[in-house]
Amino acid sequence: MTLSPDKSRVVVFGAGNFGSCLADHLGDSDHDVYMWSRDASIVEHFNKFHRNPQFLKEHSFSENIKAVGPDLPTADFLSEMDVLLFAIPTQGLRENLKLLRPRLDENKLPLLIFVNKGIEMGTNALTLEIIADTCGEHIARAATFISGPSFAKEIVRRRPTSVSVASFTISEAEKATQVFHQPWFRCYTGGDPIGLELAGALKNVYALAAGMSDGLGYENNTRAMMITRGLAEMTCIGTAFGAEPLTFLGLAGVGDLFLTCSSPTSRNYTVGYRLGQGELLETIIDTLGSVAEGVSTVKAVKNIIEELDVKAPIATSIYNVLYEGKDVRTAVSDLMAMPPSRELELPPKAGGPKWRLVKKVGLE
Amino acid sequence: MTLSPDKSRVVVFGAGNFGSCLADHLGDSDHDVYMWSRDASIVEHFNKFHRNPQFLKEHSFSENIKAVGPDLPTADFLSEMDVLLFAIPTQGLRENLKLLRPRLDENKLPLLIFVNKGIEMGTNALTLEIIADTCGEHIARAATFISGPSFAKEIVRRRPTSVSVASFTISEAEKATQVFHQPWFRCYTGGDPIGLELAGALKNVYALAAGMSDGLGYENNTRAMMITRGLAEMTCIGTAFGAEPLTFLGLAGVGDLFLTCSSPTSRNYTVGYRLGQGELLETIIDTLGSVAEGVSTVKAVKNIIEELDVKAPIATSIYNVLYEGKDVRTAVSDLMAMPPSRELELPPKAGGPKWRLVKKVGLE
Repeated sequence: MTLSPDKSRVVVFGAGNFGSCLADHLGDSDHDVYMWSRDASIVEHFNKFHRNPQFLKEHSFSENIKAVGPDLPTADFLSEMDVLLFAIPTQGLRENLKLLRPRLDENKLPLLIFVNKGIEMGTNALTLEIIADTCGEHIARAATFISGPSFAKEIVRRRPTSVSVASFTISEAEKATQVFHQPWFRCYTGGDPIGLELAGALKNVYALAAGMSDGLGYENNTRAMMITRGLAEMTCIGTAFGAEPLTFLGLAGVGDLFLTCSSPTSRNYTVGYRLGQGELLETIIDTLGSVAEGVSTVKAVKNIIEELDVKAPIATSIYNVLYEGKDVRTAVSDLMAMPPSRELELPPKAGGPKWRLVKKVGLE
Repeated sequence: MTLSPDKSRVVVFGAGNFGSCLADHLGDSDHDVYMWSRDASIVEHFNKFHRNPQFLKEHSFSENIKAVGPDLPTADFLSEMDVLLFAIPTQGLRENLKLLRPRLDENKLPLLIFVNKGIEMGTNALTLEIIADTCGEHIARAATFISGPSFAKEIVRRRPTSVSVASFTISEAEKATQVFHQPWFRCYTGGDPIGLELAGALKNVYALAAGMSDGLGYENNTRAMMITRGLAEMTCIGTAFGAEPLTFLGLAGVGDLFLTCSSPTSRNYTVGYRLGQGELLETIIDTLGSVAEGVSTVKAVKNIIEELDVKAPIATSIYNVLYEGKDVRTAVSDLMAMPPSRELELPPKAGGPKWRLVKKVGLE
């Protein structure tokens, strides 16, 4: 019982795990989908076999998808598109947006949707800020973000999934919902993209903490405590940043945190677990073959909590364990030895030195 | 490194799983503890062997605990107590409070702490309302509630645990924190006992839903969706009832929901799982030997959501599966087929016909 929304023409930037599963979902929903990859061999392989040679290898992709690339699409091509979906890593987004911006028709902007997670290294910028920098505050305010508990391998098998869809411009979030919503892929709209983005980035840091607790041999009470107190920290950081606290109670917050912390396949959880077992970070990274996102995100988080002057003892402990050589067991007992406190004392919203992002998107 | 709080004299009413683990924690924290049981044989056994013959049987209890009973303590005995801790089932609380109220010295009230969870059958009353009915609004406003992700068997082994401690009278919550707080048992205070109580009762209903999703063979995305959308429902019901939405983001909300939904030892999760696998409720109850709390709570919840006029489609579906013979698979596909919506639209706080509890405790 596929819903038949108006057929949209969508270009998905990025043929990674999440990009290709969303391309598949959109193709499966009868949209015309173009999946851009910067790798010519992937484009060729995909169009020949309708399989992605690197991700979701077992999956036979929708026939409604055509791979394009390796060059970025032209202005002419983009002018025919209804939706631009960005599924490229945060660290590569700025350069791509700079190249694409001049190819967009100011008077006929497509719907811009972003699904990358994380904070840009060096600048500590969220995606919203990267968009504002490269495309201007008008486009940043219309940009729409999708996040939530959504393993790619379950999405391509139509396992029931729900996500948050947020934009400062709620009508844009509603348009994105119309494109994506299906009975097996439910979309819930909201107006707080800052909270949604922060939740997606911060959760990886707290997945490290949950893994660490398990690795140390602690049990269910302790893991639930780590996750819940981590969520309280995320909410405080978010509020100081200008987000709505209740966003962290949603699919992009609690939902994704729960998914990440309860899955042994999560890289962040695994790194935390092995740290808890006494392994060194270098050894873990060497044998894991890839860096878990939380390991780099915690550096940006450290800067952000200092700039915002928010207390985030768990994130600070993770930073100290990863980069200051603090012993894992000492870090946990120091956390437990803190004096009792109120459960949730929210800082003033976007208080202190007003956060640059709120200014940049013209929402001050 | 046990903290040495001022030694308190505490009577714990109830020698069940949770009552005896808290008695143990308080004895372990050097308080003088009396644990009341209505069963003479338990009192005798406990004082002889310092073991509970029914719960936590492997555990050797603190020497600072003396079992008392089966008669309820006298007025003289109670006048010597600093803390009365109630760990008796919600369904038996009203009769006990009626008997105890005349034995309390109005001018020297001890700290009253409640750890039972659930809604009273027949009346749909929370514990706060039972206290207001039997002891008056003054005592109800001072009553303190403890809830959070806390398996008893982990507490008696000093596994790091955190709980929420809430009262309308924050100084009472702080006193309770002083009594309970230890580096391995952290207390976080708050001022929303209605939210804390509702979270503790409602989470059992949503644990049924999470179990059902797993029993049906759905995977991680779907379980995370069930839990998160369940949390959104809990928050809406709570807000309509007069609670603070952010309470549901705390240890008594997300924390306990996470613990219950991720533990195969949870009875509620198990009932849901077996329903999802196609077993009949009667068969499950017969073989389980005890009723899971959520199975009865959902009846009260049905009444409450109708009275408050709140939308709670997951709780309603659980009710229909349990009591209206609705097919589990149809229930889930009906939920998934609902139109898209805003992620969290809170109802007016304690709106519509003002809720009787808010009146009863004199907070209108």
